[in-house]
Amino acid sequence: MLTVILMRKVAIIGAGMTAFGEHWETGFRDLVVEAGVKAIADAGISGDRIDGGFVGTMASGRLIGQEHIGGLLADYMGLNPIPITRVEGACASGSLALRQGIMAVASGMHDLVVVGGVEKMTDLGVNTVSDILGGAGDQEWELFLGATFPAIYALMARRHMHEYGTTEEMMAAVAVKNHKHGAKNKYAQFQKEISIETVMDSKMIADPLKVFDCSPITDGAAAVVLAPLDVAPSYVKKPIELLSSAQASDAIALHSRESMTGLRATQVAAKKAFERAQLTPKDMDFAEVHDCFTIAEIMAIEDLGFFKRGEGGKATLEGKTALGSEIPINTSGGLKACGHPVGATGVKQAVEVVWQLRGEAEGRQVKGAHIGLSQNVGGSGATSVVHIYRNL
Amino acid sequence: MLTVILMRKVAIIGAGMTAFGEHWETGFRDLVVEAGVKAIADAGISGDRIDGGFVGTMASGRLIGQEHIGGLLADYMGLNPIPITRVEGACASGSLALRQGIMAVASGMHDLVVVGGVEKMTDLGVNTVSDILGGAGDQEWELFLGATFPAIYALMARRHMHEYGTTEEMMAAVAVKNHKHGAKNKYAQFQKEISIETVMDSKMIADPLKVFDCSPITDGAAAVVLAPLDVAPSYVKKPIELLSSAQASDAIALHSRESMTGLRATQVAAKKAFERAQLTPKDMDFAEVHDCFTIAEIMAIEDLGFFKRGEGGKATLEGKTALGSEIPINTSGGLKACGHPVGATGVKQAVEVVWQLRGEAEGRQVKGAHIGLSQNVGGSGATSVVHIYRNL
Repeated sequence: MLTVILMRKVAIIGAGMTAFGEHWETGFRDLVVEAGVKAIADAGISGDRIDGGFVGTMASGRLIGQEHIGGLLADYMGLNPIPITRVEGACASGSLALRQGIMAVASGMHDLVVVGGVEKMTDLGVNTVSDILGGAGDQEWELFLGATFPAIYALMARRHMHEYGTTEEMMAAVAVKNHKHGAKNKYAQFQKEISIETVMDSKMIADPLKVFDCSPITDGAAAVVLAPLDVAPSYVKKPIELLSSAQASDAIALHSRESMTGLRATQVAAKKAFERAQLTPKDMDFAEVHDCFTIAEIMAIEDLGFFKRGEGGKATLEGKTALGSEIPINTSGGLKACGHPVGATGVKQAVEVVWQLRGEAEGRQVKGAHIGLSQNVGGSGATSVVHIYRNL
Repeated sequence: MLTVILMRKVAIIGAGMTAFGEHWETGFRDLVVEAGVKAIADAGISGDRIDGGFVGTMASGRLIGQEHIGGLLADYMGLNPIPITRVEGACASGSLALRQGIMAVASGMHDLVVVGGVEKMTDLGVNTVSDILGGAGDQEWELFLGATFPAIYALMARRHMHEYGTTEEMMAAVAVKNHKHGAKNKYAQFQKEISIETVMDSKMIADPLKVFDCSPITDGAAAVVLAPLDVAPSYVKKPIELLSSAQASDAIALHSRESMTGLRATQVAAKKAFERAQLTPKDMDFAEVHDCFTIAEIMAIEDLGFFKRGEGGKATLEGKTALGSEIPINTSGGLKACGHPVGATGVKQAVEVVWQLRGEAEGRQVKGAHIGLSQNVGGSGATSVVHIYRNL
């Protein structure tokens, strides 16, 4: 593995997001403009200081008939002629946009970069959206044969249960915790607490996953502003340093993977991210992870090294990932309760990490938060992206 | 305007492409793997030396039901777990992928990067494809009202004719020249010469644009391999230096532009590219430009400063852009004759430039070629990307 030393260090100097939920009277363009303007205002600069941008969105072509999202947004953000580029990596699109922004600043190509993530999903029927999301997996070997995402994650859940004794109650505990966190987040799609029974008694989607094991269909956008670390303090009092950005790939179809009980892409990306930051999982004060389904969070906290393989479910049931524990997971409510506008999720994770590291997370603040991590998965794990952040 | 000084200079050390055309027995995955493998082999390295990748593709979600193209390709190229990221900017997707590759190497994030572009377009009916391509413009204000791309470029052509006296014969001359060049390129979709009459007598698509004024619907892929310039000579005898990469934006809808007879995004990107390379249009020995319609090439050679505003059509008719002239344009045959698999086009332009700068362009070689330029447009001009290349 190559040692990555970025030519220039990068910091986040602004963050903002829309409420996540069903936006019936707000379009794709409005959502991402709102988030972008909030992030730029938060950085205390005017838009004409921005000299480049990136936006993550998964399926705008199929969801709203619009491609060329970079050009569209430069226009609607009033940023012409500065360049904005769209990046796509399914549900990891947002983190990939963040990663391109980091490279843009680190390379010297750009100085002040806005990074957005957006998806407008609720305007189509659920079966259509499910088919569109299926394009994040292997269209020829999975989706074409009927395997939508709940089915794919259900296979992983069954195998995790078989190998490690993970139970449906343990998975339900992920949902209960994330709804509890989401209830403290005014941007979350769901702000109501639920019980284990709520999950266990809910409608079966793909055995053993019930509707409360699944993240929802959501509209929303999030954005951050990046600057070179050395000048970041001249813009804001609390810049957040990006300590490392790592991305890895794995087979796109589940049947080609070595294991179904963890994501190798996350394991590889995490290893790289920790090495580059010269830190270990124990150094993390909290993390935002990709809980598109409850089993995904259990695999994530194992893949990231917070818990041993097979012990993630038990740890969750015992409250070891709740606010107040040693490693609070998904203080935002995660994809499960905060919502999952797929292209926006990776950037929303960064926004939550920034708020935590600045001490601005209100009722869900992690006390003394100094170092945070985000993990964002594309599809069923063909892409995974890990970022580590630190306050100064 | 900020002075961009990249932290690390970048070179192209490998290039390859598939034949462009109608590939009835070859899928999306096969096409891009073929191009990628050719580029990596051309660089004289084995795949396991590659540590990152980018791929440009516009509309795989709608064309083949598949998103998450980065993850898919890492898998099918046998490159797991190295990261590959998809970039989208409509018909400029390929150049944007090249640009991300440059930033990845310049930033120190990656060392050896493969950049691909691909589109598989011929499996759907022409009306469906036309609707999908319309997503490169303004879906709400143009496409929804019926304005597909031939209509949008027809408006620009009419205005150019009105303001500058450009004629239909001058536009036809673009097609005639590019078919003549394409006839010397074994990778081109059309390898037959045509006459002015062929164009003038062909079916009207959107007045004044006839079918021979339009680039075709094409399947194809292209790829290059990037490396830090300082180590590039250790890999290959003839590395090609990337002197500058510039991108700019403009309003996505034609009705919001200041002018309809040129693309401001190209003008801004060209100005930046020339400044960064400390060169002028006169220093270019040849160029690959975005001739999605014949009028687009006329605007491009004016926007890039090769000819004065309004004189591009006359210059073309007089043979001033043909092979053997001072500034040969589209020696590959351009989008018009080589074909236009939209996501692949920007990378194909880079491949043609590399071949010319290495002296490997066979019957269409520009003698003494030392510096080349490529210009790639997204949609009707909301994005434009200019790259300048030099042999060592």
